[in-house]
Amino acid sequence: MPATLAQLGQIADATVRGNPELRISGAAGIRNAREGEIALVVDASYVPLVPRTAASALLVATDFDPASTQLPLLVAEEPAEAFDRVAAHLHPDPPPAEPGIHETAVVAPDALLGAEVAIHAHCVVESGARVGAHTVLRPGVFVGRDAVIGEYCLLHPHVAVLDRCTLGDRVVLHAGVVIGADGYGYETRDGVHYKIPQRGIVEVGDDVEIGANTTVDRARYGRTVVGSGTKIDDLVMVAHNVVVGDHSLLIAQCGIAGSTALGHHVTVAAQAGIVGHIEIGDQAIVGAQAGVVRDVPPGQIVLGSPAQDLARERRALVVHQRLPDLAKRVRALATAVEQLQQRINHLECGAEDRP
Amino acid sequence: MPATLAQLGQIADATVRGNPELRISGAAGIRNAREGEIALVVDASYVPLVPRTAASALLVATDFDPASTQLPLLVAEEPAEAFDRVAAHLHPDPPPAEPGIHETAVVAPDALLGAEVAIHAHCVVESGARVGAHTVLRPGVFVGRDAVIGEYCLLHPHVAVLDRCTLGDRVVLHAGVVIGADGYGYETRDGVHYKIPQRGIVEVGDDVEIGANTTVDRARYGRTVVGSGTKIDDLVMVAHNVVVGDHSLLIAQCGIAGSTALGHHVTVAAQAGIVGHIEIGDQAIVGAQAGVVRDVPPGQIVLGSPAQDLARERRALVVHQRLPDLAKRVRALATAVEQLQQRINHLECGAEDRP
Amino acid sequence: MPATLAQLGQIADATVRGNPELRISGAAGIRNAREGEIALVVDASYVPLVPRTAASALLVATDFDPASTQLPLLVAEEPAEAFDRVAAHLHPDPPPAEPGIHETAVVAPDALLGAEVAIHAHCVVESGARVGAHTVLRPGVFVGRDAVIGEYCLLHPHVAVLDRCTLGDRVVLHAGVVIGADGYGYETRDGVHYKIPQRGIVEVGDDVEIGANTTVDRARYGRTVVGSGTKIDDLVMVAHNVVVGDHSLLIAQCGIAGSTALGHHVTVAAQAGIVGHIEIGDQAIVGAQAGVVRDVPPGQIVLGSPAQDLARERRALVVHQRLPDLAKRVRALATAVEQLQQRINHLECGAEDRP
Repeated sequence: MPATLAQLGQIADATVRGNPELRISGAAGIRNAREGEIALVVDASYVPLVPRTAASALLVATDFDPASTQLPLLVAEEPAEAFDRVAAHLHPDPPPAEPGIHETAVVAPDALLGAEVAIHAHCVVESGARVGAHTVLRPGVFVGRDAVIGEYCLLHPHVAVLDRCTLGDRVVLHAGVVIGADGYGYETRDGVHYKIPQRGIVEVGDDVEIGANTTVDRARYGRTVVGSGTKIDDLVMVAHNVVVGDHSLLIAQCGIAGSTALGHHVTVAAQAGIVGHIEIGDQAIVGAQAGVVRDVPPGQIVLGSPAQDLARERRALVVHQRLPDLAKRVRALATAVEQLQQRINHLECGAEDRP
Repeated sequence: MPATLAQLGQIADATVRGNPELRISGAAGIRNAREGEIALVVDASYVPLVPRTAASALLVATDFDPASTQLPLLVAEEPAEAFDRVAAHLHPDPPPAEPGIHETAVVAPDALLGAEVAIHAHCVVESGARVGAHTVLRPGVFVGRDAVIGEYCLLHPHVAVLDRCTLGDRVVLHAGVVIGADGYGYETRDGVHYKIPQRGIVEVGDDVEIGANTTVDRARYGRTVVGSGTKIDDLVMVAHNVVVGDHSLLIAQCGIAGSTALGHHVTVAAQAGIVGHIEIGDQAIVGAQAGVVRDVPPGQIVLGSPAQDLARERRALVVHQRLPDLAKRVRALATAVEQLQQRINHLECGAEDRP
Repeated sequence: MPATLAQLGQIADATVRGNPELRISGAAGIRNAREGEIALVVDASYVPLVPRTAASALLVATDFDPASTQLPLLVAEEPAEAFDRVAAHLHPDPPPAEPGIHETAVVAPDALLGAEVAIHAHCVVESGARVGAHTVLRPGVFVGRDAVIGEYCLLHPHVAVLDRCTLGDRVVLHAGVVIGADGYGYETRDGVHYKIPQRGIVEVGDDVEIGANTTVDRARYGRTVVGSGTKIDDLVMVAHNVVVGDHSLLIAQCGIAGSTALGHHVTVAAQAGIVGHIEIGDQAIVGAQAGVVRDVPPGQIVLGSPAQDLARERRALVVHQRLPDLAKRVRALATAVEQLQQRINHLECGAEDRP
């Protein structure tokens, strides 16, 4: 919803410098803001970007030098928070989904639906499934037989929650997420891989958010667990029987192999991989692209593939980047040692010659 | 389906120790079993986990020391196999899908459907496509024009098999799998990338299983092949014109670039990548996170990025992790050599001084 | 559409050698062509494959030695281009989609549809959305509230373009692509991660093609941008507020973290990762599996994790692969230096002894 600079100043509890009638159509990052938009100068590191921005106004902190730009300004005590309010006004949340079941949705007669659920077009809710009150299933969501979705959940288009899997309350699954595909388990006899039935489920706690096209596989027995408060990014792979503790963060494209257990408040950075059957302690951090092959104690930060303690790996990487120099130095040393050997040979001959 | 310990003992052909009337509601892994569940102590390595488990009963081997726990036990000769039977009883397979075409499915009049197919809600089967007998398309599956699905296949929700691609018999595709998106091919002229038409198909053999959200692209010409008996995990990317031999294993998040050929019984571990236009020999193994840039002979195991023979790479990784020590040792050697040089200079001067 | 060799010779403007009545059913790569198919010998590097091919005919250049095979040949001046024409005849493009809205599609009454759009079964177009003329939405596509799709776009099955995101003209999105899932942003207070609203959009330029199951997240504010002419492969992850310049190439399974800006004609190879908040200059190339942690100047080629200049990293990798040898050499030098020290000690003692 567009607004004048004066209106945004009121919303942001900020002082207006410049034309109060200037019409602002949106909020954007300073790097790619466009004409008509307002951008945030969150701290001094953004000041060099000011001359290059195409924004029509800036929201700045009180210590910003107003002489450094011609742009109209909103000056706020807490600029980040003020900008959130401005952005919320310019780009309001969509209206809440109307409760109700779309006529094209296919809901089994024995599915249990809570109060005020919204089930959009082309959703399927199979027999025995439960959908908690106030939950929204956007178009094309699949909820399998006997699956359980908690209250106030939001399942984006084309999400699949397969048979018997469970979600807690206030869970957000982004488009294309698959909860409860079979774990990858085979027994090989005479070169043929026979499927090991995957009879378990996935159990997702409360307040979990999972990014687009991420997959969490069902357990062989028991359950694959995503703890409450944990946030998972896009295209992450969580294998069967993994336990992810509460309040952990799994960043884009990382993968956790089967039966590994993560504690609470663990961070796994982008594109990292963790082998199966190990334990990652509480509050441990696995660096981007790391490959973790053994247990990580609580609180440790690891990096590299195979991963080791951050400080060690960083030093190793510094040396790695200079490996050609190191190799050259070793070659030079070898030459120097050879020369020394010849000189000593010579000296020793002289010493022997002496009577 | 819950059961008493006595009933499970009969099912497992196991001896019951403890209350035979104990009611068991599920089977689970020993690490995250809950009250009411039975867990497996498959071998001695699991014994340390026994005191910490929340399971209400254990299934153990005959050499398990019953004095080591208070928990009721099922004692079996072949515990892994016995536990499979117990789990199958507690968590039975879902009933087979009822044959039939859901009223919301859209099936082209000229599509050929085998006997007893089940086509669930919101599926689309386009013109000229064939679906073999006893195959199940779960909700939201898309089968493109002239595609061929074999018999006894199971396509999970939201799978897409695009035009003209073919699946053999007994193929399982998990939710979100895409078979036959266009390969990534462009010709660049004057900085503009022009699409190279991708006219080929994907051909998937018999008894293949493919994990959630994996993509297998169609060939530029001819076919991208996934051989019979091959099992692919979640979020794997198989590019155009790749040939994956029979009975191979592609683990989560690995990727195979265009026109590369894998032999039979090849294993590609998680997050590994293989460049295009090379050959990976039969029974070769590519380690996790490896980056393979040249042919791998049959049977070889490779690791690292760029990948090399496992033994060599392992030794290199041991040195890598100690690189700071190595660099320090080289610096110390340089100092030592310098000192030697000075001492020899001194000795040589002395030698010259002598008459 | 099958053809005789003579017909294909006409189509390809090529000379026929061998039986002109031979019936050809398809075009394929020389490695996995089958009986009845024609394969291309594009240059001399393919000649060794000729004796092993199962193709029934070959299309070759004028300098191909016809005595080297028994197979019937088409001989062409420009074999690659000729083969394209042959393949286009054997595997013609599918007929264009019939315009119209399928009866099972759910299109909001206030959505704006251009001329000749084709909206297939089970699509959903929400309120306020616009779909440009001649655009095709294949089955199960979701277009969110106020989203804008340009003209002549092709959205494959199960694509999701979420609320307010925009696509230019002639955009191709392959199956399972998700445009506009929320960016991954949380503020952590007392160990609890609170969602930062993601109020921005994704803006995709003209002539963009995006591969299967790739995800491009919406901006926190403003927009995540995919520039015109850019081509993205399968399973790529583009995070919130990223700007990808025009005519760039993002290859399979690579990932770009939040707020990073890529110039035009940038190439990011497979499985590479780029951290957030940095800049990758025009025409830079990021090698496969690289991990980029700082700005890359225009035109630079980087490799490794952390990435550095290609030439440096290549030299480092050569040394890396020989690290055990280097370590052994350092050990040998240490021994040599020790021996020298002892010999010098001895010489120095002798020198002192002398009067």
